[in-house]
Amino acid sequence: MKIDILTLFPKMFTPLEESLLGKAQAKQLLKINICDFRKYSQDKHHHVDDTPYGGGAGMLLKPQPIYRAMDEINAADSQKKRVILLDPAGKQFNQKIAQNLATEDHLVFICGHYEGFDARIDNLVTDHLSIGDFIITGGEMAAMIMIDALARFVPGVLGNDDSAYSDSFSDGLLEYPQYTRPAEYRGMAVPEILLSGNHQKIAQWRHQQSLLKTAQLRPDLLKTAQLTAEDQNFLANWKAAHKM
Amino acid sequence: MKIDILTLFPKMFTPLEESLLGKAQAKQLLKINICDFRKYSQDKHHHVDDTPYGGGAGMLLKPQPIYRAMDEINAADSQKKRVILLDPAGKQFNQKIAQNLATEDHLVFICGHYEGFDARIDNLVTDHLSIGDFIITGGEMAAMIMIDALARFVPGVLGNDDSAYSDSFSDGLLEYPQYTRPAEYRGMAVPEILLSGNHQKIAQWRHQQSLLKTAQLRPDLLKTAQLTAEDQNFLANWKAAHKM
Repeated sequence: MKIDILTLFPKMFTPLEESLLGKAQAKQLLKINICDFRKYSQDKHHHVDDTPYGGGAGMLLKPQPIYRAMDEINAADSQKKRVILLDPAGKQFNQKIAQNLATEDHLVFICGHYEGFDARIDNLVTDHLSIGDFIITGGEMAAMIMIDALARFVPGVLGNDDSAYSDSFSDGLLEYPQYTRPAEYRGMAVPEILLSGNHQKIAQWRHQQSLLKTAQLRPDLLKTAQLTAEDQNFLANWKAAHKM
Repeated sequence: MKIDILTLFPKMFTPLEESLLGKAQAKQLLKINICDFRKYSQDKHHHVDDTPYGGGAGMLLKPQPIYRAMDEINAADSQKKRVILLDPAGKQFNQKIAQNLATEDHLVFICGHYEGFDARIDNLVTDHLSIGDFIITGGEMAAMIMIDALARFVPGVLGNDDSAYSDSFSDGLLEYPQYTRPAEYRGMAVPEILLSGNHQKIAQWRHQQSLLKTAQLRPDLLKTAQLTAEDQNFLANWKAAHKM
């Protein structure tokens, strides 16, 4: 998969060289190109922003440098691509969107910083995506998080050990609490069942802990999770016992 | 404000040196300390993880290195602090949480990577926070985004120009489309009203564009936005005209 990132802060992307994404690039599964779109400004001072028509505070990114950067990307690869604008007004990014983007051959992320955009840039964009309902200084970190989440679905990027962790949401429940050595630490003991060696009972306990944790922290997830009659019974009994 | 970050990937935090957060640190408004908690492992190979009790795939972060790192942070500063665990099962981070965290003197972020945690680490934590409903490789990028969002509420961090942009969500509506020079680019013209110089009409057009954009992209926000009778009328007429 090819990924182009349009940004004014290319140095912010060093985290992409670490950890999973660094390995995915070394294995040639991902080819990430960081493009500082300031170089496409035709302005003699290489300005990329200007004041808004109609007045108002702040500066806006001009259409021209971003259009010219896209021209070069399209000249090098003429196939259709998904062009993602990091935009607080966009659709909220989630696991389904990550999975869908991972099926593409070529993605482009456009990161703003500080300011808004000239609205004509929208005509280049296929997906307006937001990382959440909060304001951040630029789209750079949001783009990196999206790339991390979607890269995990690109075949070969995850090893076997890693993929286990992504099971957290896969059955629609939160993960059960886990414990490792020592069996007691600062007076806190590991639940005895986990030391019992009885794998059937451990599996049952874990599943019930998942149900309880989800009911307590994210009851909204229970509405769409696939629950058996036994699960529903267990939760009903727990709710009755806790007078919920 | 003091911020400690516990991580196994200290090199991932270079984006904190750039842009707004870099300036906030230079002005001593933020003091960010990155702590590689591997150094607190008492294991001779400096391992920080171990297999889960009761079996299962993946490795878990051991309680000991993180408890010892916290001991040192608490020894240096005995006042109460908020300790945030980056956790996909946590509460979803938003602008209100950012604003609330910005009132604290000292925050600690604990970032996991790849694996889960020994559940006893929960006893150190005051806030379990998630950046969204998707799986990422580690908590590092999520912590950086949260720090960016909350730092914007720390007095002095934002200049006047920047603060304007954060108005996006402040009246509960999405921002209206904005335009800058040139007035025509690749056949796309700026809306004429913005060139009219009539500031009252421009303000009205912008407000109506905010309403329309919110109605089209984020109708959920209209439920909690403060709408005047005139706003409601305008939206009702628009919906009738578009048979919605």
